[in-house]
Amino acid sequence: MIVVLTGGTGGTKLVQGLQQVVTPDQLTVIVNTGDDLQWWGLHVSPDVDSVLYGLAGLLSADRGWGVEGDSFRCLECMQQLGQPSWFSLGDLDLATHLTRTAILRAGNTLSHATAELAAKFGIRARVLPMSDDRVSTVLDTAKGKLTFQEYFVREHHQVDVTTVHFEGAGQSRAAPGVIESISHAEAVILAPSNPVTSIGPILAVPGIREALRTTAAPVVAVSPIIGGAAVSGPAAALMQMKGWPSTIFGVAQAYDDFLDVLIADQADAGEIERALGDQHSMLSTPGLHRELASASCSKTAQVLCTNTLMRSSDDKRELAAFILKHCFALQSAEA
Amino acid sequence: MIVVLTGGTGGTKLVQGLQQVVTPDQLTVIVNTGDDLQWWGLHVSPDVDSVLYGLAGLLSADRGWGVEGDSFRCLECMQQLGQPSWFSLGDLDLATHLTRTAILRAGNTLSHATAELAAKFGIRARVLPMSDDRVSTVLDTAKGKLTFQEYFVREHHQVDVTTVHFEGAGQSRAAPGVIESISHAEAVILAPSNPVTSIGPILAVPGIREALRTTAAPVVAVSPIIGGAAVSGPAAALMQMKGWPSTIFGVAQAYDDFLDVLIADQADAGEIERALGDQHSMLSTPGLHRELASASCSKTAQVLCTNTLMRSSDDKRELAAFILKHCFALQSAEA
Repeated sequence: MIVVLTGGTGGTKLVQGLQQVVTPDQLTVIVNTGDDLQWWGLHVSPDVDSVLYGLAGLLSADRGWGVEGDSFRCLECMQQLGQPSWFSLGDLDLATHLTRTAILRAGNTLSHATAELAAKFGIRARVLPMSDDRVSTVLDTAKGKLTFQEYFVREHHQVDVTTVHFEGAGQSRAAPGVIESISHAEAVILAPSNPVTSIGPILAVPGIREALRTTAAPVVAVSPIIGGAAVSGPAAALMQMKGWPSTIFGVAQAYDDFLDVLIADQADAGEIERALGDQHSMLSTPGLHRELASASCSKTAQVLCTNTLMRSSDDKRELAAFILKHCFALQSAEA
Repeated sequence: MIVVLTGGTGGTKLVQGLQQVVTPDQLTVIVNTGDDLQWWGLHVSPDVDSVLYGLAGLLSADRGWGVEGDSFRCLECMQQLGQPSWFSLGDLDLATHLTRTAILRAGNTLSHATAELAAKFGIRARVLPMSDDRVSTVLDTAKGKLTFQEYFVREHHQVDVTTVHFEGAGQSRAAPGVIESISHAEAVILAPSNPVTSIGPILAVPGIREALRTTAAPVVAVSPIIGGAAVSGPAAALMQMKGWPSTIFGVAQAYDDFLDVLIADQADAGEIERALGDQHSMLSTPGLHRELASASCSKTAQVLCTNTLMRSSDDKRELAAFILKHCFALQSAEA
């Protein structure tokens, strides 16, 4: 069983790649729900939706969120009616939120709602919210306390952040299957999602970080940072705020207590060479195992370089295949 | 002040006509909410919406309900997600229901929500729900107990009805302004809506029927029955179920304790002549006042014949102007 921990945009691309190289019943996706919001009275789970749409082949390739070919007619009317409109829900997308909200209002859990939606979308991989309890990513910023979507969408993440909180995390429980799937996985993959606000909330749910530390499976993270910058979104700024360098070394540091392998982009091979000194000879070869000798990592991790920028369906499949190949090689070597 | 009591489709046409002949601040519309339903977790007020869309110039002329030019993309997705889909909400229409539901969830009344929506739609006439309390039209039928929309939309009113109940009516209070506007009106008009399930629920709210009996204003009803058949919908069958003939005389009977004038269609002039015997000479002239001598009417009402079929905007305006002219003539005569 391959278990992926993911946020929305970047992570979903990797999930789509994995879908091409493993059978659906081998794939479990654990999704951040710290970004969930009540919008127009509906329960919206942006990251869960991206994963569901991605797996169902419905995700808008242009936008990276929402449904391909969606329209925004209801949104325009909401705006005319003086309702908040900075968070865009498409007309097709709305059906997902209306359905989820109806399932939740009937007294069911978010896990249940997610499984029901996944089934309706014909998805056979297992998609689990990190928790059925409400965990909210909240940021202290120069504009005051903002929820993640206020920060990310409304303010276009153009505001300085001093602290990130995961409200409710302390009292939350991992959703059914989350801890078990990590513990019994053959490989655990942290998708190239923001370590602070996409993977961070998942790690804040009691028991999940511990499961990552103790699982026998190799834990592999794909860096969302290439060449010292985030592929998309505010990962670099938020990592700096946390005191981590906005480099692949910072990513390793975020996961330093459980990380076995960091997958970095080819573009970072030079950076790795410089950091690791004379062990650089093989670094330009994809598939190279190399100890990540960053002083800040408490655990000895390895780094592999390959193309991590997923522009096409082929890119996604190749990255997924690369990860699996080396994970299983690692497992065989350990066995 | 002109006060109209109305349901959805037919009544809205008359309201649109009145809008053309009176200034908006002279017009109060009291709307049936017995058809309201919770749909996809949203509070839908079908008759209120028809009136709002009608007054805002947004009503679909083809359908007679919903927004002109609306699409049904969300509905199609809801269907694919296994959600109930027999009641159609358009993508634009959804914004109204989302907004109303949000206003209600914030602890406001239906009157408040309706006024807020009306203001956003730029409507200056006053639109009042009959009550802020929940009154539900429920029908005992050959298929068991059905809500009005189950009967009307889902079953296409093709099922025999034995009884109509207005659940909650006994405990309901008329919405603010309803009783007062009837009591202080210059004319009260019952729109050509179903006497049983559109006007019936309004009359079932304590105090409203009494206000109609005691108001000094002439109370005028436009018959929704032409030539012994309903212009649309199940009015004829439901009137028969109530023991009223499905004719203009049955309409008069439904309102017999407060009706001053019944507006009938020209097509019924012959029927009236036959019923009223030798007083027929002037009946083909629109504007004729004639006592409605139906034995079943406890109050002596008059009947006026004109064109009541509202196909065009001109038809609507002409009918509205006709009613007002004769109402005010009546008032002058009484004064």
